[in-house]
Parts: sequence; structure tokens; C-alpha cells
Amino acid sequence: MSIQIPRGTQDILPGEVEKWQYVEEVAKSLCHNYQYKEIRTPIFEASELFTRGVGDTTDIVQKEMYMFEDQGGRSLALRPEGTASVVRSFVGNKMFGYPNQPTKLFYSGPMFRYERPQAGRYRQFVQFGVEALGSEDPAIDAEVISLAMGIYKELGLTQLKLVINSLGDADSRNAHREALINHFKPSIDEFCGDCQNRLEKNPLRILDCKKDRDHELMGTAPSILDYLNDESKNYFEKVQTHLSDMDVEFVVDPTLVRGLDYYNHTAFEIMSEAEGFGAITTLCGGGRYNGLVQMIGGPETPGIGFAFSIERLLSALEAEGIELPIEHGVECFIVSLGKEAKDYSVKLLHTLRAAGISSEKDYLDRKVKGQFKAADRYDAKYVAVIGDNELQENKINLKNMSTGEQEEISLDHFVEKMKNKLGK
Amino acid sequence: MSIQIPRGTQDILPGEVEKWQYVEEVAKSLCHNYQYKEIRTPIFEASELFTRGVGDTTDIVQKEMYMFEDQGGRSLALRPEGTASVVRSFVGNKMFGYPNQPTKLFYSGPMFRYERPQAGRYRQFVQFGVEALGSEDPAIDAEVISLAMGIYKELGLTQLKLVINSLGDADSRNAHREALINHFKPSIDEFCGDCQNRLEKNPLRILDCKKDRDHELMGTAPSILDYLNDESKNYFEKVQTHLSDMDVEFVVDPTLVRGLDYYNHTAFEIMSEAEGFGAITTLCGGGRYNGLVQMIGGPETPGIGFAFSIERLLSALEAEGIELPIEHGVECFIVSLGKEAKDYSVKLLHTLRAAGISSEKDYLDRKVKGQFKAADRYDAKYVAVIGDNELQENKINLKNMSTGEQEEISLDHFVEKMKNKLGK
Repeated sequence: MSIQIPRGTQDILPGEVEKWQYVEEVAKSLCHNYQYKEIRTPIFEASELFTRGVGDTTDIVQKEMYMFEDQGGRSLALRPEGTASVVRSFVGNKMFGYPNQPTKLFYSGPMFRYERPQAGRYRQFVQFGVEALGSEDPAIDAEVISLAMGIYKELGLTQLKLVINSLGDADSRNAHREALINHFKPSIDEFCGDCQNRLEKNPLRILDCKKDRDHELMGTAPSILDYLNDESKNYFEKVQTHLSDMDVEFVVDPTLVRGLDYYNHTAFEIMSEAEGFGAITTLCGGGRYNGLVQMIGGPETPGIGFAFSIERLLSALEAEGIELPIEHGVECFIVSLGKEAKDYSVKLLHTLRAAGISSEKDYLDRKVKGQFKAADRYDAKYVAVIGDNELQENKINLKNMSTGEQEEISLDHFVEKMKNKLGK
Repeated sequence: MSIQIPRGTQDILPGEVEKWQYVEEVAKSLCHNYQYKEIRTPIFEASELFTRGVGDTTDIVQKEMYMFEDQGGRSLALRPEGTASVVRSFVGNKMFGYPNQPTKLFYSGPMFRYERPQAGRYRQFVQFGVEALGSEDPAIDAEVISLAMGIYKELGLTQLKLVINSLGDADSRNAHREALINHFKPSIDEFCGDCQNRLEKNPLRILDCKKDRDHELMGTAPSILDYLNDESKNYFEKVQTHLSDMDVEFVVDPTLVRGLDYYNHTAFEIMSEAEGFGAITTLCGGGRYNGLVQMIGGPETPGIGFAFSIERLLSALEAEGIELPIEHGVECFIVSLGKEAKDYSVKLLHTLRAAGISSEKDYLDRKVKGQFKAADRYDAKYVAVIGDNELQENKINLKNMSTGEQEEISLDHFVEKMKNKLGK
């Protein structure tokens, strides 16, 4: 009996994996231009990291986390997101003391959430994200946003909507919080139980509620933008000026919120507006979290970052009908006739590969016709044919599959000539 | 209070991560030349996959596996190795029916074993491996071995020892098994409890025992090579001929065994002989497993593969004193003086990066001297200096940090000129 892949997970197979490689390569290369360096943190962490760093009232932590005990009795969790781990590493490795500040990091890897599997939503998914820790310059906010947009644009996406908002500093948030409580309190009985709990604890999250989103008080709720103090207002304006200077188009949406206490100032989301992309249009979310490093046990350090799922990015590319420029095909396929030529082809193949030429041959004792068919399937640029006769005469027959040109080449110069032909 | 990284795991930080990137890039690029394509399987699998595919009598499965139940009550395990997952995917996705055979795959990713942490041994480690499924041509055995050696050589390792052996086909193994039982049975009381259990179940694994390795019967145990039937002998000889044709040096060691029933024919290990590499010298292990696909529920399909840990590979590079050719440094660092120039530098930075030039500026309001120091720390190739005056005159001052040359460039042509200078 065969064994099934775990529910809600997927294999990424050849034919599909090349898209992942391409997308990740573009993201990494842009991160290099922006001077974000890779960090790799473990797949699991102490569960406490996420209850503190993601928030113990969130669905992610309460309902969706894969938790387990190791044999030493430690409570561990498969990471449901990347920021908490990066901040844990920043604190634990005392990166705040490194001479180069801000600390600019990116990560790419699997994350885990126990959700109901559905189209485009997996229990293991891949997140790519960046974090910039140690600077409160609005230019860093604009940089982080422009990097996310830059990755999408580099990949050819055009139907994007960038939405930004400011949550202000602590004072602004507190003023807004009071206003929200006053706004909702008189009619809170008309809201769901979750919202009733949120009222005093975290009224901002009422605005995120899916059950009550059509309640008339939602549309008239006080806007954070009306409660920003001067400093917060200036900060937000500066971010917008930088974005405009960079020709990054955006829309301000005061309803875009982040529910946790350590978020502040800039919040943003990038949505796909491609037709047929589906109900969940958010590709990327990010924002400033000046309180998080302290929450994880480090010194007061400002921070900002974003994360996006590669799965969703690939869906957006598909929705826009974008073909990534992926190279298929092998550079040289060797067809052999006869026993000695077959043995020789193993050696020749090895020499080609060692010279940096992607090469293949038959390993199933196919007849010549079958070998030529295989060469077609491998989409070979060149097919080299060698028989026992050619071998004795120290030569090989080479066919350029795009032009149909054929030539005989001395075996002594074959690899050299192939390198020239392929510009290596 | 700060939160610790889980015991036995590590963060891979900038400064170190570049080595990982380089090593993986070399391995992937060689896999491309050899036409092995990437496959990505989930981090966890049904526990049963590993009890079947790795063996329920192995330490890996009995003692070292991270097992847990998900919220649906499924028994899952963090993968302790890569082959079982790849074979599960090969079977589940019916890859045996694909037109291109053999199916040649590589993987790279974290694996998990609950072991006592020690120098160079982690509970989460990264394995790189390949599997070739669907061919029994000895040329594939030689190809797989030469690929492993090729990766190490490409990275500059020279102090390597390749050891190969044959376990023969089922008939040869059975004959050898009988001989082993007869050899050990009379004195089995002198061996450890594990070995006594192994005698009838799997006598080959007695040869692997660490406790009893000095027992005199170990050295005189019957060699598998004396029990190979003609077919197995011819197979092994052909593998050796191909390796010699490829100039891959090797040593035959008849004590190199693999304990599980589905292993057969070729087995190999690559060891580092570098001084100071430590007690565990094995870098890479591999072999043929013609019975495994059936064991996992697929059709009878021959297979062969190898796996190595990136951690250990990096240790070997260090032991041989090999410096990987890693590029550090940013291409352009912008120093700004004055408020307007500072704002302008944000925009200019964005243009440089969008043009493919890695660039950085200060985000901490450092004074000019501090900005120059930062440029030094970022190892900048060029430093561009712009003040409010220069900005008004629409020009920028550029310094080549290796030659000391300075020039004034019109801002209108700056990005173009930078691209030329950097050959982009």
C-alpha cells in the first residue's frame, strides 16, 4: 500500500519547481541590490516565542500552530511565520551590537499553519520576507515597501494595488483606541462575542472582524488618521513623499490595521487586481513594529518588514498570464550505437559535464530511434551521435537541433568545440 | 526575558550564510549539468513512511525521530532523511509513468534527528541528496558517484577518499547472510545484546556494531565479495570500469555495508582525510536500493542515490583551509550632506538598485565622517558624495575606492555611467 502525502501539503516537482527557483532568485537578487542579507533560522522554535511574538490571542497561535514536545519535554512549535524567529535571532546573537546598522535581513522558507486546506492555501507554505531592524528613518519604510513592489514588478506583475496606512505612535494609538471604545461601546451587544471581548482588550481588531463587517458602525468608526499627533503625521507624510519620489504608486486606506500592540506607524498591503485571482487578493503584508524587539527580550529597537507567500505570488503570475523566462532543455544529448560506443559515451558525458555543459544520454538500453526520441523530449540543443565505427575513426557526428546543421568533429577537440558553440 | 534558540539547532547568519549559498549553488549547478532536477517535499510526513522506508529497527526511527500528532490525530514525523520522501513522491505522483526515464532528482533542505548535540552535529541539519530512479545501468551508479565527487572537487576539496563496495543482488546477499550467521553463531554470547538480536534478523548489521568492533571474529567475517554471483560480480566490475574511465579514484572496502534489506549492489562513502577534521570522517553516503520503491507501495523500480550534510561539507572545507570565492562589498555607497541632498539620496539609491546596482546609504543620520566610515565597513567599490550644493548644480562626486580616483558626474548620466563602470 502506498503512503499519502500529509493533508494540506504538496510536493513541488520538476516542471513546476523551476518557477519557484526563478521567483526566489529574482527576490534574492533584488535583496542583494538593496543590501538585505539572508538569515536562516530553525524550522521549529520554543512555542513561547510565537505566543509572545505573534500574540496569544491570534488565530495563528490559538488554533493553527503545530505544537509538540520533544523528547526532553520542551514545548516546540513549527514556525507559523518568520518575523518572530528573525527577531529572536537578532536578540540572541546580539546583532544590535554589530557595527553595520540598521540590520537588514531576508529569509525564505517553509511556514506551517493548521488551516482547512483549500485552493491555494496549504498547511505548509513558503514565505519570503525581509526585516530592517535598528532605524526609524521614514526612508527605510519606503525602501522596504519599494523592495516588495520591486520584486513583483521585476517578475512582470502589473495589476497591483499598494495600500498604505499609519497606525501612529503609542500616543496616537491610545487616543484612537479611546475613540474606538467610545464609538462601539453603546452598541457592542449587537456585535459578535469575539468583538465584545476585543472592545476593551484591543478594539482595533473589531475593524478586522469578518462576521460584523457589514454593521453600520464599521463604516463610521473613527479613523486613525484623525488621531495621529504631529510627529506621527510628519512621519507618515515623509514615507509618502519618498514613495512618490521613487515613482511607487499607492493608495492610503485608514481601515488597514494591524491588531497587535507592538505595531505602529507604517502598515501596508499589496493586492493583486488581476481578474480571476480569487477572493483572497492580498499578496504581501508588512509594517513597522517598533515594540517587538523589546517584547522578545531585546533592547528597544525599531523595526519594519514584510512577508509574502511564494504560492500566492505564483498564482498572481498565472492570473496575469505571465510566462517566466525559464530555460528548458539540455545542451547536449549523446546517442550511441554499439557496445564500445555505449561505454565510451559514459566517459564522454562525464567530460562534457565536468566542462560545464549540461548533458544527457540514454540509460535504458534504448535502440537508436528511441535515443533520438529521448533527445527530442529532453529538448536537446545538440545531439552527438557516436557508433563503434566513428569511435575507431576517433570522430563524432554533431547535429544542431535548431538549424539542422550536421558536422563531423574529431573526438580530440569535441569538448572544446562544444564549449565554443555554447559560448562557455 | 529573551527566548533561546531550541537546543541542538543553529541560526545561519550573514557572514556565514554566504558559504551555504555558494556551496548549494555549486551543487545545484552541477546537478543541472548532470540533468538532476530539484524536488521539494514537505518537512513532515506520515510517520509510517520512515518506519517503512528507513527501517523500524534503526536508531534513526526508534530513538531519533521527532514525532507528533496533528490536530486531526495523524501521526507525523519531521523527516530524518530525504530518500523516503522522494520515493513517496515518486510513487504518489506516478513519476514512473513519465516519459523521461530514469527519473533523476535532487533535493536540499533541513532534516531532523533528536541526537545528543555535539561539535558539528545538530538536531536540525541540511542534507543535499540525489536519487536516480528507473535504471539498472551500472553507468548510473558511476554517474551518481562521480556527481558527488564532482561537487566536492568543484569546491576545491582534495583530501578525499572514495570507498565503494557491492552488496550484490538478493541471491548473493542471502548466501552471504547464511555465511555470516554460521560465522558468528558459535560465539554470539560474546557479543552485545544488540548483536545477539541482529544475528538472525540482520547479521550484516553486526559488522556495523560500535561496541563489538574489536572482537576477533569481526576481522575474519566472510566478505560479501566472496559471495557475489556472476551477475553481481559483472555489475560491480562495470561500475568500477566506468569510474576508472572517468578518472574517479576509489578503494574497494568489503566491510562497507548497508543494513537494510532493500539495499543491494553498489554502496559507497566519501571520507575526508584532512587533518583535524575530527573523528567522524564520512562526508557522504550512498548506494543502490532496488527494493525501496516497492516497499513504499510503488512498482518494482531500481534506484540509487546519495546524501551529504552541508554542515559537514563546510567543516571539511575549513579543515582543508579552503577559502570560497565569495564576493563581499556593496557596489555603491551614497554619502549625503544637507537635508535636501539626504532626501534626494533616497531617490537616487532607488534608481541605482532598480538598475541592478547593489547600493547602500546611511539610515541613522550619521555625520559625513560616520557615513564614510560606514562606506568602508560595507566595503564599497564606489562612494558617491552629494551635498545640497552639488544637488543644485545637478552633479555628484564619485570616488573609486580601489584606485582613489575621483570625478564629478552630471546627475543626468550618473546611473548610466555607474552601469558602464560596473560592466552591467
